[in-house]
Amino acid sequence: MKKTLFALFMLIQMNYANEGMWLIEQLQALNLPQAGLEISIEDIYNRDTPCLLDAIVNLGGATAEFVSSEGLLLTNHHVAYGGVQRASVQGVDYLTDGFLARSKAEELPAPGSYVRVILEIRDVTTEILESIGNVKDLVERNRLIKYAIKILEDTIEAEDIDIEVKIASMYNGEQYILYKYKRFDDLRIVYMPPLSIGNYGADIDNWMWPRHTGDFAFLRVYMTPTGKGGEYSPDNIPYKPEKWLKIASTDLRDGDFTFIIGYPGRTNRNRTSPAIKYHLNEIYPGNIVRYENTIRILDETAAQYPEAAIKVAGMRKGRSNYHKKTLGIISGMKAADFLAGQIALERELQEFILSQRKFRKKYAHIFADIQKQFEYISQTLDHDRTLALFDYDAGIIPAAAKKILYTVLEREKPEADRNPEFSETEIKRTSSRIKYRYLSFFEPADKELLKHAFMVVLRLDSTQRIAGLEFLRNQNLDQYSEELYSETKMKDPDFVRSMFFMTSEELEALNDPIIQLLQKLYQEDEDRRVREERFKAELGELRRKYMTVLSAYKGFNVYPNANGTVRLTYGPVAGYSPRDAVYYKPFTTLSGVIAKDTGEPPFDMPVELRKLGEEKIYGQWFNPEMDDVPVAFTHQCDITNGNSGSPVLNAKGELLGIAFDGNYEALLSDWQYNPDIQRAISVDIRYVMFVTEQYAGAEYLLEEMGIK
Amino acid sequence: MKKTLFALFMLIQMNYANEGMWLIEQLQALNLPQAGLEISIEDIYNRDTPCLLDAIVNLGGATAEFVSSEGLLLTNHHVAYGGVQRASVQGVDYLTDGFLARSKAEELPAPGSYVRVILEIRDVTTEILESIGNVKDLVERNRLIKYAIKILEDTIEAEDIDIEVKIASMYNGEQYILYKYKRFDDLRIVYMPPLSIGNYGADIDNWMWPRHTGDFAFLRVYMTPTGKGGEYSPDNIPYKPEKWLKIASTDLRDGDFTFIIGYPGRTNRNRTSPAIKYHLNEIYPGNIVRYENTIRILDETAAQYPEAAIKVAGMRKGRSNYHKKTLGIISGMKAADFLAGQIALERELQEFILSQRKFRKKYAHIFADIQKQFEYISQTLDHDRTLALFDYDAGIIPAAAKKILYTVLEREKPEADRNPEFSETEIKRTSSRIKYRYLSFFEPADKELLKHAFMVVLRLDSTQRIAGLEFLRNQNLDQYSEELYSETKMKDPDFVRSMFFMTSEELEALNDPIIQLLQKLYQEDEDRRVREERFKAELGELRRKYMTVLSAYKGFNVYPNANGTVRLTYGPVAGYSPRDAVYYKPFTTLSGVIAKDTGEPPFDMPVELRKLGEEKIYGQWFNPEMDDVPVAFTHQCDITNGNSGSPVLNAKGELLGIAFDGNYEALLSDWQYNPDIQRAISVDIRYVMFVTEQYAGAEYLLEEMGIK
Repeated sequence: MKKTLFALFMLIQMNYANEGMWLIEQLQALNLPQAGLEISIEDIYNRDTPCLLDAIVNLGGATAEFVSSEGLLLTNHHVAYGGVQRASVQGVDYLTDGFLARSKAEELPAPGSYVRVILEIRDVTTEILESIGNVKDLVERNRLIKYAIKILEDTIEAEDIDIEVKIASMYNGEQYILYKYKRFDDLRIVYMPPLSIGNYGADIDNWMWPRHTGDFAFLRVYMTPTGKGGEYSPDNIPYKPEKWLKIASTDLRDGDFTFIIGYPGRTNRNRTSPAIKYHLNEIYPGNIVRYENTIRILDETAAQYPEAAIKVAGMRKGRSNYHKKTLGIISGMKAADFLAGQIALERELQEFILSQRKFRKKYAHIFADIQKQFEYISQTLDHDRTLALFDYDAGIIPAAAKKILYTVLEREKPEADRNPEFSETEIKRTSSRIKYRYLSFFEPADKELLKHAFMVVLRLDSTQRIAGLEFLRNQNLDQYSEELYSETKMKDPDFVRSMFFMTSEELEALNDPIIQLLQKLYQEDEDRRVREERFKAELGELRRKYMTVLSAYKGFNVYPNANGTVRLTYGPVAGYSPRDAVYYKPFTTLSGVIAKDTGEPPFDMPVELRKLGEEKIYGQWFNPEMDDVPVAFTHQCDITNGNSGSPVLNAKGELLGIAFDGNYEALLSDWQYNPDIQRAISVDIRYVMFVTEQYAGAEYLLEEMGIK
Repeated sequence: MKKTLFALFMLIQMNYANEGMWLIEQLQALNLPQAGLEISIEDIYNRDTPCLLDAIVNLGGATAEFVSSEGLLLTNHHVAYGGVQRASVQGVDYLTDGFLARSKAEELPAPGSYVRVILEIRDVTTEILESIGNVKDLVERNRLIKYAIKILEDTIEAEDIDIEVKIASMYNGEQYILYKYKRFDDLRIVYMPPLSIGNYGADIDNWMWPRHTGDFAFLRVYMTPTGKGGEYSPDNIPYKPEKWLKIASTDLRDGDFTFIIGYPGRTNRNRTSPAIKYHLNEIYPGNIVRYENTIRILDETAAQYPEAAIKVAGMRKGRSNYHKKTLGIISGMKAADFLAGQIALERELQEFILSQRKFRKKYAHIFADIQKQFEYISQTLDHDRTLALFDYDAGIIPAAAKKILYTVLEREKPEADRNPEFSETEIKRTSSRIKYRYLSFFEPADKELLKHAFMVVLRLDSTQRIAGLEFLRNQNLDQYSEELYSETKMKDPDFVRSMFFMTSEELEALNDPIIQLLQKLYQEDEDRRVREERFKAELGELRRKYMTVLSAYKGFNVYPNANGTVRLTYGPVAGYSPRDAVYYKPFTTLSGVIAKDTGEPPFDMPVELRKLGEEKIYGQWFNPEMDDVPVAFTHQCDITNGNSGSPVLNAKGELLGIAFDGNYEALLSDWQYNPDIQRAISVDIRYVMFVTEQYAGAEYLLEEMGIK
């Protein structure tokens, strides 16, 4: 198996300039110096001495970077958002107003936020694949692999309390890479600009260029006096990173080389037409309806209860972001005639397979087989996705109840039957974090979300019904929901945490109506899980075959789909032409922020910031050619969700800005990269420094970053 | 007076590059060769030999140009629109489908369309101003001037049946120029592209860039066998112009010199703040409401009666165009802080006046005096503009009735009291054209428009009421409108024509209820006219003073406001930046037409045209650098309504395209020119030729134009 992989590696060549979310191990093969990199690959990553990678951390699934020796972190405003929302529940709205700590003592805990610093990266493919022995059944193989992964992860995590390990599958299980992290749960808010800077333009400008959002925030990582990660404690001291980034001081120009290191979450590159069709016709339209319902319910609640707004803000923002993103992907697929293009490619590939003796026997049916898999999973789609509502969109308590019930039941299974996702380490982590989820709990919203889920259940076609919930037909839903929430014991997060460690008898004895509700789903949800594991196992194998054929046919560069592991992407600063006769330049300016200012949210820049712009009080943070402060820029880097907060670096590895978005055309990039029109959008470090120094008056932060 | 004028002429210098709608007499002062012109001013205009001006004609208020020795004319699709609409009433919809005559015999009369070819341009200031003698009263002076103008016009027009003369006042009466035309009323449709080319994008793209409208049409001018202009006759033969334009064959590039000769209709440059305020707060909002009501009523009628759509199309298009234009002017004024800028300028000017001994005495009160004039006219604004509804928006029959009644009453006044606008020549012209107006007559629409006008009358504030229409309060408006339209004799256009020549007794004896309705308005409308003439006379004098001060203060270039007389404007091909980080290139392409194609109006390009683009069947009409057919371009020329259809010429005087619009930012140009963002939009002659040859297959037209 490794052999195939190495064969693929040798094929690395650029079909599309700047496509690729590259593994750190692949950098030597990319010829980065030719592209413009002036430092060495070892400066980016090596095992022995401090390197750039030590300065770049995973922040709860997104990315952040150290910018001082005292653990000062830069990330996006929208990444820090959740922590600041949760810090705000005491009646002070730090989200809207922003927050500046004038000294370390004033720094504000950001509940629920955490970072992971990479300690080690190691290929563990051989160890992991050994576990499958001679087993042929794909589902069973996958289970054995998952189990081997969990054992290895747990073993290493046992080394210390702040160690976290993730073993990630690359290329549909072709390779397994282990990432060992040191985890810090004591993060504090240093400077959070007000919404009217950090979220300027909000949903209207989200995914759009030209963009004028100051999407940045400063946090600080704290450790115990003995150097461990862990939860907040007043005794903790600032973390001393091995490496921190230097702020770039030169003027960024069109065409300049840039690169990004970060944690892209998930892509669907190199997918076949049935997957595209399935998303375009089923998954995405269904998601859009789901997001719209959730947003509507949260908005209605916020309108009725003013105190709810800050509580539901995070969930609303997330759903609204995915809503716009999904619409954009659909319109991108249609504009690019993406499905038709893939179908045409598959026709060529099928001819190629039939023409090659070495492929003919083994690969002749892959497209038909993939098609069958999607037909199989489609049969229960409405049933299965309605069950999945209870994981998130049906409310915070039902989601917690489901997690608890499943944890308790899994724990009582024999070792061999247990789902490795429910390891003790994982249970401890989940249960201890449940309190942060409850900071967003607002009962009337939760109740409405659950009631809406019930209505979705009742509207299911007769072939898709959830048997365990048929009893709802005889219920008055209003009254039933009222009862569930008035009788449940799950409103107290401390008690909820303790529930994770109950036996099934103890849980049963609680007689909690929401736990009882979730019990009614359990068996059907288990069936769904088995079905999906079969689907994934079969599809994973078919996808490996597809990639083998595709690589042989096209000889293109290979990088694994994004999966939340650290990646590098690079490319020049570049504008683009979104349509006939229109050209978008790669830089926006403070004057552009002022031009959009209407005084009304989301275009209500602070009056003092406007004044600085109008009076050209820029400090050193302006570009002399523009005679203006650069605010954001576009570049040809290949990023996705999870890259939010990633450092944008110049040829010398200095910090140019912080990636925070893509343009509307780039929404399709989760599926297909197009260097002509897809762009990463980053906030310019000069705007970050200008706002921090000239607007917020936090000169001491600039001093800490070594800027005189 | 002439002295002041010449003093102004000597000050010509460019404050704003490419600002100016220049009189033909001013061209020598402009240094056009330096700007890029390669032909001589005499090639553009001279009295003795054929020159460019001979090829450029006034087409019913807009512009057109000869492109062959046989009277073939090019103009805009939207200029030819009315004639084609009126030609379509027999059940064939040439507007939607387009029309191509395969030979001269097939060419279709365009009822109501006419052109005027310039025979002579002459300064008649001395002759006209002699007439005022020692009269001091400004209103009386204006009346005497109007009278002198009419006498001179009539005298020259008596020379031949096809002679038409217009004496135009420049610089608020500082100068009078006589334009002698030969008029042709037999125009025929040669090639009209379908709506889906000629009006591609319709209202959505109107006033917008990037633009993809093929806004052109070919017509032909016919004359009698003895060379006279006049109405349609099958015996007529094609007109042989003195001069026709050569189609440019070189590729147009960004920055290339262009100039436009045409007939801009009306501008409000160099107005003072009370005029701006009056339009921004009163006139424009009122007009918007009026346009919206008219559009709504026409749309409702068209929805109810499918046969009405083509009849009301012209009126609807006109109102819709002005509606969008007015909104654009308002937003342009607000975006440019136009009023505040003018107020600041006036403050500077006031200081300047007080600091200059020669100005102090005569000019110290001009701003206060102008302000008073607007206060005076504002007092009766709602009353007066409601009366003006009956000139157009209250329906075709009421407007005709008003014209007839006023004509008959004016004719019976003593010569000295008569309004010179009602000369016998003018009456003959108006009455003979009434039949074209009636081609758009659709009784249910007319009735609704009148009923709506009644409702506007009844809603007037008590201080603004129209005494003559107070009787409406006791009427059932539905029933009254029904009666008016069932009893009127004014549905027959021939009879309506004859009514212009009745005596007031004969008119009275008709007992026509719509004539009787208009009689009730007569006295108040006469009062309004007197009031407005006083206002105009006083304001005209104050504006002359203002211009004297302004010129002395700023020393800027002087050209008279547009007034429907022939003008030249010039400037380079240029894109622009509408907002931060966005640049609009100056060219659109056939690929851009395809990119906008949705298959649904107004973006429903013909399938065959799309195919030509997709298969790159361009003929010779493509730009090799673009590898595409250029469709439209933007340039820095200073144009307005009336310039529609104007030729865009290159340095050699060859035809590059046809002006048809401005960008949204240019809507403010009626008041203020801004070379940074205001652009003329012209259809590229290569797109005109491509569509005509490759899509319509009218190669013979290209041969006629001398293109092999």
